[in-house]
Amino acid sequence: MRVGVIGLGSMGMGAALSLLRAGADVMGCDPRAAARDEFSAAGGAAVAKASDLPAGMDALVVLVVNAAQTEAAVFGPDGAAPRMARGGLVISSASMAPDAARALAAKAEAAGLLYLDAPVSGGTVKARAGEMTVMGAGSDAAFAKAAPVFDAIATKVWRLGSEIGIGATAKVVHQLLAGVHIAAAAEAMALGIRAGADPQALYDVVTSAAGNSWMFENRMARVLTGDDAPRSAVEIFVKDLGLVNDMARGLNFPVPLAAQAQQLFTAARAMGQGGADDGFVIRVWQALTGIALPGDGKKS
Amino acid sequence: MRVGVIGLGSMGMGAALSLLRAGADVMGCDPRAAARDEFSAAGGAAVAKASDLPAGMDALVVLVVNAAQTEAAVFGPDGAAPRMARGGLVISSASMAPDAARALAAKAEAAGLLYLDAPVSGGTVKARAGEMTVMGAGSDAAFAKAAPVFDAIATKVWRLGSEIGIGATAKVVHQLLAGVHIAAAAEAMALGIRAGADPQALYDVVTSAAGNSWMFENRMARVLTGDDAPRSAVEIFVKDLGLVNDMARGLNFPVPLAAQAQQLFTAARAMGQGGADDGFVIRVWQALTGIALPGDGKKS
Repeated sequence: MRVGVIGLGSMGMGAALSLLRAGADVMGCDPRAAARDEFSAAGGAAVAKASDLPAGMDALVVLVVNAAQTEAAVFGPDGAAPRMARGGLVISSASMAPDAARALAAKAEAAGLLYLDAPVSGGTVKARAGEMTVMGAGSDAAFAKAAPVFDAIATKVWRLGSEIGIGATAKVVHQLLAGVHIAAAAEAMALGIRAGADPQALYDVVTSAAGNSWMFENRMARVLTGDDAPRSAVEIFVKDLGLVNDMARGLNFPVPLAAQAQQLFTAARAMGQGGADDGFVIRVWQALTGIALPGDGKKS
Repeated sequence: MRVGVIGLGSMGMGAALSLLRAGADVMGCDPRAAARDEFSAAGGAAVAKASDLPAGMDALVVLVVNAAQTEAAVFGPDGAAPRMARGGLVISSASMAPDAARALAAKAEAAGLLYLDAPVSGGTVKARAGEMTVMGAGSDAAFAKAAPVFDAIATKVWRLGSEIGIGATAKVVHQLLAGVHIAAAAEAMALGIRAGADPQALYDVVTSAAGNSWMFENRMARVLTGDDAPRSAVEIFVKDLGLVNDMARGLNFPVPLAAQAQQLFTAARAMGQGGADDGFVIRVWQALTGIALPGDGKKS
């Protein structure tokens, strides 16, 4: 089985490396030479443009930034569609609106290709370990064809139904929670610091109590040590909460917390923190109020 | 050791029953006859007014609604202070602003009493099992005197320092997170339902992923079955997020997510849902958009 991975970013690189480790005939694709070189150094091969993929690809994993990039990578002038075997499978894994997933699925069908609406989660570390979670929707035939790929890259594959768009919806709803939880973690930690609480003690209390979230526990640990190297960056949540707001507006549905959280990540990006780890949205409160962050003195 | 428990609500009743089970010489206090009767039926004794407590109380656990009720229960005309032994201990466990805790501690000191700033968490079930969490601050002498009480009612006692107000701060910060997480859970679940996702599948995906929170997992399980009997009610979060906002304003500190979440609980209360379980803040979105909630057909 010939598999292409388009987009060798934090998630795509993990998927490509996992496929390589599983012995798949895999070809990466990324316009950035540094990403291609990293994959080559691990024993893989990669091309710069999807139209340079070898002919007869059986499956594509598309892990680019959004729906527009996915469309260009598969159906654009330099897209992969003409390089695919008849009945080949497009696994579309970027976060996108359900409507965009449905539009892409229609294009795939017109081109004689199978399509899976299959966003992923798990973060860089799990992606590299072949332990992603897939939120999938599509036909039985598409899931059957995807099985060896998912075996290599994921430990959990949710089959949310045959209707394209439900995978995208689950991911968007997940990102609403993830984004609000990170911003709330920052707001709460910043308030506690301003009120004179010891940040580490506050962390210990919250993480053992009903106020905990996966994101509070994971991201505030980084804030405590000042480690702002991005595993997921502030600007990712400007984008993903934008997707939440766009989808909600399209459904005529109010999402006041997601809207507020997006403004906070946007404020952090406005400060020049777009590339920082997303928990460092806490620097918005630091900039406004002058609080000292616990990790500021610990940075190397 | 003679212990009084003032306030036989969901948490206070749990504390009083736990002390009774531990063999303490305990006396309850609540103006509501039904609460006193419930404690009596379990083998306890209770009075209606704090000034009717027996003389020579060694410790009081005050589990009323807020700082004003705490002050009235201990230092008011019908308060418990004159009934306490010399050097007796006031364990102040209602959620309140740090400033209010400091004011109460000053009154206790003037009356020759020890004081612990000791909010609790854990919910009704854990309170009844003697498994509360205490977020405590105060002197070594106060903690030493409290030890047998905490042994009976709590499994985890955080000693956050000697400075009064840090326990209150930790609880307020905790409630910020708890309240925002519940409202975010409702917003996310409601959006997913509107977009056509299966609520149970969405619950399964989120609770196994990085978007999870303790509150999402606990409260949305109740929404899925339509079980709106309050373990903690919508109106509690109108109050507790009000406390967050008051404390933050006093510190000249912006808390946009907590402010937004308080508005959502306030909207639910405006709809007549103040007494419903707090996860049913989701009825705000139902009222606005007409979505069907999964538990609506399951109610008995």
